[in-house]
Amino acid sequence: MPSSIGTALRVTVFGQSHSQAVGCVIEGLPSGHGIDARRLAAFMARRAPGHASWSTPRKEADAIRILSGLNPDGRTCGAPLALIIENTNTRSSDYSMLRDVPRPSHADWTAQVKWHGEQDFAGGGHFSGRLTAPLCAAGGIALQLLEGHGVRIAAHILEIAGISDQGFAALGSSRQASALATQMDMLSDGRAFPVLDQDAGAHMREAIDAAHAQADSVGGCIECVVTGLPAGIGSPMFDGIESTLARAIFGIPAVKGLEFGMGFGVAKLRGSQDNDPYEIVDGKVRPAKNYAGGNLGGITTGAPLLFRMAVKPTSSIGQEQRSVDLTTQREVPLRVKGRHDPCIVPRAVPVAEAVAALAVLDSWLAWPPDPPTDARFD
Amino acid sequence: MPSSIGTALRVTVFGQSHSQAVGCVIEGLPSGHGIDARRLAAFMARRAPGHASWSTPRKEADAIRILSGLNPDGRTCGAPLALIIENTNTRSSDYSMLRDVPRPSHADWTAQVKWHGEQDFAGGGHFSGRLTAPLCAAGGIALQLLEGHGVRIAAHILEIAGISDQGFAALGSSRQASALATQMDMLSDGRAFPVLDQDAGAHMREAIDAAHAQADSVGGCIECVVTGLPAGIGSPMFDGIESTLARAIFGIPAVKGLEFGMGFGVAKLRGSQDNDPYEIVDGKVRPAKNYAGGNLGGITTGAPLLFRMAVKPTSSIGQEQRSVDLTTQREVPLRVKGRHDPCIVPRAVPVAEAVAALAVLDSWLAWPPDPPTDARFD
Amino acid sequence: MPSSIGTALRVTVFGQSHSQAVGCVIEGLPSGHGIDARRLAAFMARRAPGHASWSTPRKEADAIRILSGLNPDGRTCGAPLALIIENTNTRSSDYSMLRDVPRPSHADWTAQVKWHGEQDFAGGGHFSGRLTAPLCAAGGIALQLLEGHGVRIAAHILEIAGISDQGFAALGSSRQASALATQMDMLSDGRAFPVLDQDAGAHMREAIDAAHAQADSVGGCIECVVTGLPAGIGSPMFDGIESTLARAIFGIPAVKGLEFGMGFGVAKLRGSQDNDPYEIVDGKVRPAKNYAGGNLGGITTGAPLLFRMAVKPTSSIGQEQRSVDLTTQREVPLRVKGRHDPCIVPRAVPVAEAVAALAVLDSWLAWPPDPPTDARFD
Amino acid sequence: MPSSIGTALRVTVFGQSHSQAVGCVIEGLPSGHGIDARRLAAFMARRAPGHASWSTPRKEADAIRILSGLNPDGRTCGAPLALIIENTNTRSSDYSMLRDVPRPSHADWTAQVKWHGEQDFAGGGHFSGRLTAPLCAAGGIALQLLEGHGVRIAAHILEIAGISDQGFAALGSSRQASALATQMDMLSDGRAFPVLDQDAGAHMREAIDAAHAQADSVGGCIECVVTGLPAGIGSPMFDGIESTLARAIFGIPAVKGLEFGMGFGVAKLRGSQDNDPYEIVDGKVRPAKNYAGGNLGGITTGAPLLFRMAVKPTSSIGQEQRSVDLTTQREVPLRVKGRHDPCIVPRAVPVAEAVAALAVLDSWLAWPPDPPTDARFD
Repeated sequence: MPSSIGTALRVTVFGQSHSQAVGCVIEGLPSGHGIDARRLAAFMARRAPGHASWSTPRKEADAIRILSGLNPDGRTCGAPLALIIENTNTRSSDYSMLRDVPRPSHADWTAQVKWHGEQDFAGGGHFSGRLTAPLCAAGGIALQLLEGHGVRIAAHILEIAGISDQGFAALGSSRQASALATQMDMLSDGRAFPVLDQDAGAHMREAIDAAHAQADSVGGCIECVVTGLPAGIGSPMFDGIESTLARAIFGIPAVKGLEFGMGFGVAKLRGSQDNDPYEIVDGKVRPAKNYAGGNLGGITTGAPLLFRMAVKPTSSIGQEQRSVDLTTQREVPLRVKGRHDPCIVPRAVPVAEAVAALAVLDSWLAWPPDPPTDARFD
Repeated sequence: MPSSIGTALRVTVFGQSHSQAVGCVIEGLPSGHGIDARRLAAFMARRAPGHASWSTPRKEADAIRILSGLNPDGRTCGAPLALIIENTNTRSSDYSMLRDVPRPSHADWTAQVKWHGEQDFAGGGHFSGRLTAPLCAAGGIALQLLEGHGVRIAAHILEIAGISDQGFAALGSSRQASALATQMDMLSDGRAFPVLDQDAGAHMREAIDAAHAQADSVGGCIECVVTGLPAGIGSPMFDGIESTLARAIFGIPAVKGLEFGMGFGVAKLRGSQDNDPYEIVDGKVRPAKNYAGGNLGGITTGAPLLFRMAVKPTSSIGQEQRSVDLTTQREVPLRVKGRHDPCIVPRAVPVAEAVAALAVLDSWLAWPPDPPTDARFD
Repeated sequence: MPSSIGTALRVTVFGQSHSQAVGCVIEGLPSGHGIDARRLAAFMARRAPGHASWSTPRKEADAIRILSGLNPDGRTCGAPLALIIENTNTRSSDYSMLRDVPRPSHADWTAQVKWHGEQDFAGGGHFSGRLTAPLCAAGGIALQLLEGHGVRIAAHILEIAGISDQGFAALGSSRQASALATQMDMLSDGRAFPVLDQDAGAHMREAIDAAHAQADSVGGCIECVVTGLPAGIGSPMFDGIESTLARAIFGIPAVKGLEFGMGFGVAKLRGSQDNDPYEIVDGKVRPAKNYAGGNLGGITTGAPLLFRMAVKPTSSIGQEQRSVDLTTQREVPLRVKGRHDPCIVPRAVPVAEAVAALAVLDSWLAWPPDPPTDARFD
Repeated sequence: MPSSIGTALRVTVFGQSHSQAVGCVIEGLPSGHGIDARRLAAFMARRAPGHASWSTPRKEADAIRILSGLNPDGRTCGAPLALIIENTNTRSSDYSMLRDVPRPSHADWTAQVKWHGEQDFAGGGHFSGRLTAPLCAAGGIALQLLEGHGVRIAAHILEIAGISDQGFAALGSSRQASALATQMDMLSDGRAFPVLDQDAGAHMREAIDAAHAQADSVGGCIECVVTGLPAGIGSPMFDGIESTLARAIFGIPAVKGLEFGMGFGVAKLRGSQDNDPYEIVDGKVRPAKNYAGGNLGGITTGAPLLFRMAVKPTSSIGQEQRSVDLTTQREVPLRVKGRHDPCIVPRAVPVAEAVAALAVLDSWLAWPPDPPTDARFD
């Protein structure tokens, strides 16, 4: 069972919901970069559980301990950076029955099929959403590095339970960059429930509470944008920025859909509508609009990289569901106990940003805008 | 510029629109499998251009020459299988102006930025849709192998220009497998315009013709299903079947969105609706419905693997568009000449099937259902 | 800076000589295997410093903490196994001058060139022999797994300072397997100075002491054998068992040479001497002798896999050497302080075994003896 | 069965001895480089068979056809470069018996075990030395690219049948670079039997002829040097320049040993002898000698990269040998027919250079001397 991603920047994630710790190793991090521990902790806090009505009451400090990869001055030294987050609040007894009765739409049963009962079933094991904590840690570090080069990444809740937030102003011309920057500024306060339209947000929270009251859960959709990228990042075909992001994004538990730019909307457009003409802005070639979502042929255009991802409702719900007892091979009712988020979308927002940061930094390092001939040898 | 995909089954694609040939190398193909050349040619013919009103009149025989990888008896021998398809019908003069004036929403400009003019601009070079020919060849071979093990793959046009086909009967219980099989049978005649609802198909073709008459193009959406897979294929996180498929699918030119099972629809569902309960069918554990699209935690459930992908309208259109002259850095009008499909969706259907076959076979070989402990050493 | 190796079994090593901890993540470990902690500790103890006259007095408990990868029953669960070894005994002040004056034949200067001073220079940083501790831990786990399938691995000191030990009886027919087994039994007591000929060993230790007395060091050669492997492991060309082992072995600090079977001796042989004829033993095809060292075309023959590796003298010596001050760019004398092994060969013996175990297990899992056609799909 | 090598520069080799063609795909070749077809053909000619008494009389033109990867101006375009060499002179009937009776010390039997008879046994299939033709083609292209940046690579026969050539003057100070350059100049005439000492060469040829007369073969040793490399290429541990070269070199058929710098000689040295002190030459830090063979910790020092590799005697000999009939499981005598080199060492010299070029260029592109902080993002 591998758990790595990346080419030039490779992140290997380890840990299970109830193992001693979760963590990751980051290979390929450029040297000489300081890490702002306070900002990293603030980023982690956005994902951390236990802070709101829509979040599991399982409390984890999610404190990061960096084991290696820094030089005596505290900057990245080029060697692999390993970090761990201790699992301090595990209540395995909540989960002991999962060995026999798989929770619907969790990986309990597929893991059982694959590992014949040797998998760590406790709390979902390696499939647990807990694994997004080290992903966020790695992504938070990548984000700091990218920000040092003018890149910004922001995500928000676009939809929950059919209620929509306002979208990013990212499909238009580069002349409208300030509108998008204003939206991103609004989100930069690290809000726990990141939406652009506060009224929509209030309605979403009501929908979450309503589902919660019925021991149910709700799904949603997240929109993420990356600005400040130069043109030329990515590679054709399977190492394009879309392919790289897609592999990473579908590695996040509960993601069921992904689209770039106009996304599925292209099915209703003509070429004359969808195509982004070119114009000259400030003496430079720029797409006149950005239906392509910031890349063509897998290579960035310099326009905002924009994607949306669908997040399914939390599978763990308190309502009675139909399942089977794997030992007796009989159908049995199941009521999932334990502590669950009625909606994981809010906590998945920083995860989207983190994974975007990892994929973008990897693509930048692996498939950068090519230097003029031979410069790479100097 | 890499052009490879796969872990246990690795496909490396090469060629440009106007190079001597396009082709691929397949590493990791299991040995001992015969290849039915006639059926492979029939599969290739579904993608080949020049056969219908919605397709470019560029004619290519797309004849496959297998250079290596077969034993004296004509079966796969375990060594890399290399195949080439000669480029016989190239008219580079059509494209000479592209060096200076990039076509909107093609990769002409991003390639120029990345390679400083050293890229092969003719006909889109390595970014050309022509590269889907060797992809289809590789996928067609993978498909034959999978079929030998009871796997079937079928795709159809789900939507063009806002007109929808009937969907696959793949989101329900395994008890409804015969309805899906009937749909797949309907498509198995290799039809050039693969839809389930012929009336919808007729409307789609009218929409394509209407766009064509205006020197315009239309986009669409393709739905693909894989049946007959055992449970247990895939790996958690970034090597899950969804991640593997996603990286591959977004490597197909013009794809802008991808979703599995209920896809973006999950944003409007509650957990109690989206979750797939378990039931016992014929003495075996089965999901009672298949909103998950055939996998949980990246591992197949044995239910149909179902995905939809959005395909943007052909970027090359005859209408005048705004572009820039890269030499003079001035905005100039562009009217793309050459031979183009007013809608590439029909020809992308076998490409979807081919890429699905490659991703599924790779996952099967790389992350198979785990044998009971130690069996792998016997 | 990557630090990973392996295809199906991937080991990522992290840590620096003076970082908080060293450790590794093992991806791809088969599930369901118990780990004998006591035996693993005993294996680690063979590499651990501080126990003999030829070893650095730096004392490290080298206690392994397994953070993840086990199921509630303590067996491997298929998820990545992460382990750490805390660095408890670091004396960075010994090394502070290394920032300016690189030690001859260490990586101090090449690291400085590569990372412009951002590398962790303390104690050699990521280049330190300390990194062989997590390698041994990973290899020790792989070894236990292999032993469960009848594989044995043993290494011994073949040469130190020109004094030779008796060689393994591994180049002959499978009929002579018991002689080799007896030799391996002799070494299985975990001796700190593993030789087959105790007299030769005594002479070697005298040579080490003599060098030590002169603030000097000595090099040597290690021979390693792997028995009990089935025929059919490995893949042609670059993923052959020799290539896989070679990449791994040259990743061990101080290794300067590697040979298989007759090794460099083949340069003096004729084909009629070097070729291993086939014979039937107990009804099975076997090479009648084993000059090939257990593999042909990169694929195991079932005969003992045999290799020898050259280990250079410890670079850190107390004698005055010529170096340069990188700040002043002047030549300066250097006398390396700190705690060093006058000979690292004895402690490198378990490292050779560990790396052999990792390479062999990886090859077994990645390129196993192929199952009969289609069996892999069942 | 994979057949690829490289990280940033990936070469995938395909073909069998008697397949339609052999060839390779090179991914990651920098764009904008012209390829001198005449010089490439001259390089290929050094490996080509049929030109001398020590070479197989099988004649192959070894003409390279480049299918893709060039732009309209004939320079590399960044896309994968695919090339093929047709197999024009195959006489499979010579080999038909190999299906049943494996040749000693060939891969016939291990391939049979691995692929259960589905392998292409004709002429050794994918294990054939014929596969070094595309390796040479790829390496010859890499070599031209490196030469454009001041890098030179030269190899010579160091030993055949116990007769030694003079060694390269590459273990000393950079002050002695001209002596080495003179040696390299001597070899640059593309001589078919590349030695530095012509008398030794004459004796070697006599030894080859003597073996040939007895239907036997002889082994040898090749020394290879790379000059003009900057310091800083390579990465610690498993991606060091030694590990990268080692994996590649052991992928060449018949190689049984590899050493760098002083190689196995280090076992007889003290640290005070083996260590390379630093000195200032022309205002720059340089190792005062080069026993390390041009790298420390896997990273180049700028001194000549020096390695030696052992090549076993041709396994195919006309003398009668003992083998077994796999069908009857009886021991039978075998006399290998067909056309064989009595010594493959001379033809392996350009292969060593080619593989060195590929490994060095890959390391340069993948793990270059690090730019100062952040320069990589500009």
